[in-house]
Amino acid sequence: MGTGQRTGRRPGNPDTRTQILAAAQTLFAEKGFRTTTLRSIADAAGVNVALISHYFGGKQQLFDAIQEFPSDVLRSVTDAIAGDSDGMGERITRAYLGVWEDEDLRPRLLALVRSSASEDAGLDRMREVITGALVGDGHRQLSYAMAQLFGIAMLRYVTCVPAVADVPFEQLVADIAPAVQLHINRAGA
Amino acid sequence: MGTGQRTGRRPGNPDTRTQILAAAQTLFAEKGFRTTTLRSIADAAGVNVALISHYFGGKQQLFDAIQEFPSDVLRSVTDAIAGDSDGMGERITRAYLGVWEDEDLRPRLLALVRSSASEDAGLDRMREVITGALVGDGHRQLSYAMAQLFGIAMLRYVTCVPAVADVPFEQLVADIAPAVQLHINRAGA
Repeated sequence: MGTGQRTGRRPGNPDTRTQILAAAQTLFAEKGFRTTTLRSIADAAGVNVALISHYFGGKQQLFDAIQEFPSDVLRSVTDAIAGDSDGMGERITRAYLGVWEDEDLRPRLLALVRSSASEDAGLDRMREVITGALVGDGHRQLSYAMAQLFGIAMLRYVTCVPAVADVPFEQLVADIAPAVQLHINRAGA
Repeated sequence: MGTGQRTGRRPGNPDTRTQILAAAQTLFAEKGFRTTTLRSIADAAGVNVALISHYFGGKQQLFDAIQEFPSDVLRSVTDAIAGDSDGMGERITRAYLGVWEDEDLRPRLLALVRSSASEDAGLDRMREVITGALVGDGHRQLSYAMAQLFGIAMLRYVTCVPAVADVPFEQLVADIAPAVQLHINRAGA
């Protein structure tokens, strides 16, 4: 997913909507849906409660938007899987890390990974998303490829290890795509 | 680290010590050192408070044992890095995933990863450990290799994605070592 492909965003400051989603994601994971109030989400996001109504309607719609998010992100990867297997390693690497590279989406991915890792329900949800996306032949090798990309995202964007965080994006894609391609080639062998 | 190489363990049920460490790790990460009591750790681990004193002495010694743990784990990987670069991919893969495979160590690694991912201080600590272990030439490529292994650990042991979790250990090593070796070869190129 490149920065030009994001569709369906409402007019206004794009960061505000992302900040609300990231805050809501964290609070729902920490406190559950029932006990999380719109006010606490607004406070955490640093916005007025009315702005949440403006962007999402209500708490249920906000929750629905969060649930849909991982599927949207994975769709950009599954799109990259379609087509010739020769260039697939680079396409998947660029698509997956491209989502993380997007400064509007990154806060939501960070909230998702950090809250999922600490919550049993979050881990269940993560497993469902990963398992659901990786169906069909060669899903073990595709899982290995996704593990490589997920590990890079953890080191580059979550823990911010300098050796990985400081590499320019195009260099990173060139460095990682061959390992991803190797797994894909073994799936076809 | 193979199951036969664990040294320095006190006599008694090995699982008890591991359970105490895992519980303490989680509680220290959630509540901080000061507010976490030995009693709450004992309750979480399902043991008597006196048993914690028996194994560790006091709260400070328990905390010290937790701090030393990531370095011990990484040492098994840095030991695997020593020697001929031809077999390094398999040695690192076997050493790193072997630690996760160990049923006594796994609960502690799970607690470490899950608490680190949700806590800023945990992420800082994780970054320090990774950065400290990956010094010298080729540390970017080694980071990519570690990212591959970390991602596999996340899918196999943390989220338990069946496609990865169900692979026999020797098959997993055979599947992953080539991608790790690829990164190492590029470091030497």
